[in-house]
Amino acid sequence: MKEDFIEKLIESFRTLPGVGYKTAQRYAFSIIEGSRDRAERFSKSLIEAKDKVGFCKVCGNFTDTQVCPICQHRNRKIICVVKDPKDIMAMEKVKTYDGVYHVLFGTISPLEHRGPDDIKIKELLARVGEDNVEEVIMATNPDVEGDATAMYIAKLLRPLGVKVTRIAQGVAMGSDLEYADEVTLSRALEGRREL
Amino acid sequence: MKEDFIEKLIESFRTLPGVGYKTAQRYAFSIIEGSRDRAERFSKSLIEAKDKVGFCKVCGNFTDTQVCPICQHRNRKIICVVKDPKDIMAMEKVKTYDGVYHVLFGTISPLEHRGPDDIKIKELLARVGEDNVEEVIMATNPDVEGDATAMYIAKLLRPLGVKVTRIAQGVAMGSDLEYADEVTLSRALEGRREL
Repeated sequence: MKEDFIEKLIESFRTLPGVGYKTAQRYAFSIIEGSRDRAERFSKSLIEAKDKVGFCKVCGNFTDTQVCPICQHRNRKIICVVKDPKDIMAMEKVKTYDGVYHVLFGTISPLEHRGPDDIKIKELLARVGEDNVEEVIMATNPDVEGDATAMYIAKLLRPLGVKVTRIAQGVAMGSDLEYADEVTLSRALEGRREL
Repeated sequence: MKEDFIEKLIESFRTLPGVGYKTAQRYAFSIIEGSRDRAERFSKSLIEAKDKVGFCKVCGNFTDTQVCPICQHRNRKIICVVKDPKDIMAMEKVKTYDGVYHVLFGTISPLEHRGPDDIKIKELLARVGEDNVEEVIMATNPDVEGDATAMYIAKLLRPLGVKVTRIAQGVAMGSDLEYADEVTLSRALEGRREL
């Protein structure tokens, strides 16, 4: 009897990424011991986020409107191409960027049988054609798949007369050279700039 | 606009113990990317657990009835005394224990201005008086406060003619002697038994 509701809550928490039984139990107890108000707000925020948040028709960003505020209000002549909607949130920490985004929803990955047609490349080409775009910034992850996808898209875009750039790769701020891998270091060296 | 619902959900997750912004964000994205059904079940389990789960009038265990199933169906002549309701869940992993429990809701802690009257000691004494109890097992944590509380309660119970025991302290199963602290080792030595 009693365990039902607690166990159900624990099971809910276990569906979260990286949460095992012990952690889920700790979360569940914190809900039971917390205020009714908090549980209610938590419960409501879950269903609201799920119901109201979808993907922007233009760029694929998370949004609760048809077209996201970024697409509505910002400079459409620069498009930053990312893999996932959450990457937009990361990029938005850079307050100086005033362009818009395009989410690919994946990268080209032969190993996972994902070709160019399985990600939103066609949609990107259409946008570049329509919106008089001046620059496309490839901000896919700095890994094999991200690099390959960036190269592939760049090749398709160049004939359209648009400038295609790739975010710089090098040693991360605050990191330690001693622990940087050789690819990172070699890219940091290649991309060196005069002081 | 769009960030509202996501941010609200992230804030909800941040109220969980040990969850920072990054983790909360990961959880929130997993909800948004997951199924509507999952979000609904999650949302419902939160509010149900909060609404239906309370504390047993007799022992203090989590329950959705006035008196918990353990108090209703098990041997009331043995009471295992623990600090928190969640300790009951831990103890219940020992399938052979057939007695009941008593939750103190804290330990005596002069540093935190918590005296004997601030935890459920009176209630324990009343139960021992009423229920013809044969043994009280002190299962408070093996730390300074847990030990002190166990000693204090044992002193109060002995005049009532009830057997008071303390769970054994020693090296934990699967642990490594090399890393055991000296108090644990000395207690393991004191509590040694003939083979």
